[in-house]
Amino acid sequence: MSRFWSSTVKKTKPYVPGEQPIDTDIIKLNTNENPYPPSPYAIEAMREAVGEDLRKYPSPTVDDLRQVIAEREGVNASNVFVGNGSDEVLAFAFQAFFEPNEAIKFPKITYSFYPVYARLYNIPYQTVALNDDFSIDLEGMCDSIGGVIFANPNAPTGRSLSLEEIEKIVSHNSNQVVIIDEAYVAFGAETAVPLTKKYPNVLITRTLSKSHALAGIRLGYVIGNPDLIEGLNRIKNSFNSYTINRVTLKGAETALKDSDYYDQVISQIKSTREWTRQKLKELGFEVLPSDANFLFVKPKQIEAKKLYQSLKNEKIYVRYFENLKDYIRVSIGTEEEMKIFVEKSNQILTSLHMKGPK
Amino acid sequence: MSRFWSSTVKKTKPYVPGEQPIDTDIIKLNTNENPYPPSPYAIEAMREAVGEDLRKYPSPTVDDLRQVIAEREGVNASNVFVGNGSDEVLAFAFQAFFEPNEAIKFPKITYSFYPVYARLYNIPYQTVALNDDFSIDLEGMCDSIGGVIFANPNAPTGRSLSLEEIEKIVSHNSNQVVIIDEAYVAFGAETAVPLTKKYPNVLITRTLSKSHALAGIRLGYVIGNPDLIEGLNRIKNSFNSYTINRVTLKGAETALKDSDYYDQVISQIKSTREWTRQKLKELGFEVLPSDANFLFVKPKQIEAKKLYQSLKNEKIYVRYFENLKDYIRVSIGTEEEMKIFVEKSNQILTSLHMKGPK
Repeated sequence: MSRFWSSTVKKTKPYVPGEQPIDTDIIKLNTNENPYPPSPYAIEAMREAVGEDLRKYPSPTVDDLRQVIAEREGVNASNVFVGNGSDEVLAFAFQAFFEPNEAIKFPKITYSFYPVYARLYNIPYQTVALNDDFSIDLEGMCDSIGGVIFANPNAPTGRSLSLEEIEKIVSHNSNQVVIIDEAYVAFGAETAVPLTKKYPNVLITRTLSKSHALAGIRLGYVIGNPDLIEGLNRIKNSFNSYTINRVTLKGAETALKDSDYYDQVISQIKSTREWTRQKLKELGFEVLPSDANFLFVKPKQIEAKKLYQSLKNEKIYVRYFENLKDYIRVSIGTEEEMKIFVEKSNQILTSLHMKGPK
Repeated sequence: MSRFWSSTVKKTKPYVPGEQPIDTDIIKLNTNENPYPPSPYAIEAMREAVGEDLRKYPSPTVDDLRQVIAEREGVNASNVFVGNGSDEVLAFAFQAFFEPNEAIKFPKITYSFYPVYARLYNIPYQTVALNDDFSIDLEGMCDSIGGVIFANPNAPTGRSLSLEEIEKIVSHNSNQVVIIDEAYVAFGAETAVPLTKKYPNVLITRTLSKSHALAGIRLGYVIGNPDLIEGLNRIKNSFNSYTINRVTLKGAETALKDSDYYDQVISQIKSTREWTRQKLKELGFEVLPSDANFLFVKPKQIEAKKLYQSLKNEKIYVRYFENLKDYIRVSIGTEEEMKIFVEKSNQILTSLHMKGPK
C-alpha cells in the first residue's frame, strides 16, 4: 500500500488471468485459446500491414472494421463499437452504463472479471445463485436496480440460455442496460444480436480471441443501439483516441470475412469437445454439457485441485478456480492434445488407485 | 443524451484528435507523427511475429519488453509499466494517483487530453497560466493539493524545462504524484528519469509514437518507483489483463534496441525543424523555439485559422486549436515536405497581398 495510491487503487482486487507459460512444450488448456491457427488470409493481411505506414496513427473511428462487422452481423456501422479485446470493451461498458449506488446483477458463477470491474468503478453488485443444474436463474436476473451482465454461454459452466430466455431478462430490465457477453457464442449458443433491434437496452460483446484464434491481436467488439454505442465512444474518446493498432485492424477485417475457414475450425472443436466429454464421463467424471470451447469437469475419485496439479506436473495446464473447488475447466485443444489429456488423467487416476484408497 | 448513460458519460468532454485523412497524397503535419519509417529491424521482427502464435494471448506482464526498456533507461524492470499508447498510460495514472476533491495542477496551455481525463475520473483541476514567453510558470506549479502533470517539452508550444527546474516542481509537491509527460523528449529536452531514483513521487511517461515512428502500433510506457508501478498494475489488471498485442510487443522490443537508426532519424528531424523555423521567420511569422518535433507558429499577415484552411485546400494538414486562435502547430515532416509547406505558405501570403490590404 503506497501513500500515493488513490482510493480507487486501494480498493481494487485485480483479476488474475490463467497462467501464460513461456515453455512451448506445454499442452495449454487453461485460457480457452483456440488450438488452431488464425485464418491464413488474416495472417497474410497482417504481414502486409507491417510496413512504413506504422509511423502513422491508426484510424480513431475504425470505420472499415466497423463496416465489416456490421455486414457480418446484419446491423449498421452505427451499431458497432470496437475495443482492445472484449475486456476493454466490458470495462468501458461498466463505466458507461452502470452507476455507483445502483446495484447491478450477475450470476454468482460467471466470468470473474465482472466483480473486478464493479470495484474499479465503484458499482455495487448482487450475485444471483445458479440453479442446481448450473443454468442461470432467469427470475433472479429480472428487475435489477442498476443493470445486468451475464455470459452466454456462461463461463466456466459452458451452459447457455435460449433467445427466448434472454429476452425475458432483457424485457424485465427495460430501464437498465443488459450486457450479454458472447465471448463463446460461436461454439453452440444462440446469439442475442436480433434483440438489439427490438430493445434499446441490449448490448452484446464479442471477441476474436476464442472463435477466431486471435487472442494475440486483442480485438473485441460490441453490437447495440446507436445511443449505447455513442456512450461507449464518449468513454473511449476520454481515455485513448486510438485503442486499436493498424496490424490488428487488418487482421480482424480479414479474419471476419473468412467464414469458411472458421466454420471448419469451430466444427472441429465442437466435435472434439463431445469426444472429450464422452471420454471423461467414461473415466467417471461429471461433465456439464457445454456450448463453449471448454468443459466444466468434476473429477470424482480425485480432488479437482490435485488433478489440476498432477496434470500440471505432466505439462498439461487446465484452469482451477479456488472458489469452485470441486471443478476444473478444460479448454478444448486439438484431437491429439485431448487424447493425451484423457490418457494422462486416466494414468493419474490409476496411480491413485494403485496407492490404495485414501 | 441517452437515458441509459451513466453520470460519468454525461459529464465527459471527449478529446478530439487531429484529423486522420485516408487520402495518401496529403502532406500530414497535424498529429506529430514521424515522417520516416520505423526501424527496418522492428519491421522484420513484427512480420515474424505475425503467425500461428497469434492464437495465444500475449504476456500479461510483458516482462521481455519491460526488461528492454529498463536496460535502455538505466532502471530496473520493477520501475517500468507498459500500456496501449501513452494515452492509456496517462489515463491509468490519473485514476491511480489523483483523487476526486483534490485539485491537480497543469499548465493552462498543454496537451488538451489532461482536462479530459480529469473529467472522466471526476478529478478537479486548476490550470496555471504560462509565462509571457510561453514557458511553464514554475512557482505556479508548486504546492498542488492533488498532484501535477505537465509535458516536457510542453505541447503545443515546444518549450521545455531544465532538469533543475523540474526538480523544483517535484520537490515542492512531495506529497503528491508529479507526472512528466515526455512524449517529445527525444527531440531536444532533458529527461527527468534520474529524478525517479531520488523522488518516490515522480512518474515519467513516454511513447513510441513520435521518436520511434510507431504511432500505428500503440505503445507507451512509464518509469517510476515500484510503488507507483504497482498502483498502475492494479488499475490495469482491473481493466484488461492483456493490453499489448503480440506484434506490438515484438516491434517495441526491437525498435528500442535500434538506437543507431533512431539517432539519425531524430537528428534529421531536428535539423529540418531549425531550417523550417528560419524560413517561417523569413516569411514574417513568429515561431517559438522548439525542443519537440513540431513548431508553434503565429502567422502575422493572415489569421491562423485562414492559413490552416488555405493549407488544407492545398492538401497540407497542420493543426489549429480553437482555443489558441492566433497559432497553428506544424509537425516536422521530411525536408521535401517542409519545403512544400513553406512554399505554399508563401504563395498563400502573396495571393492575399495581391488582393490588397483587408
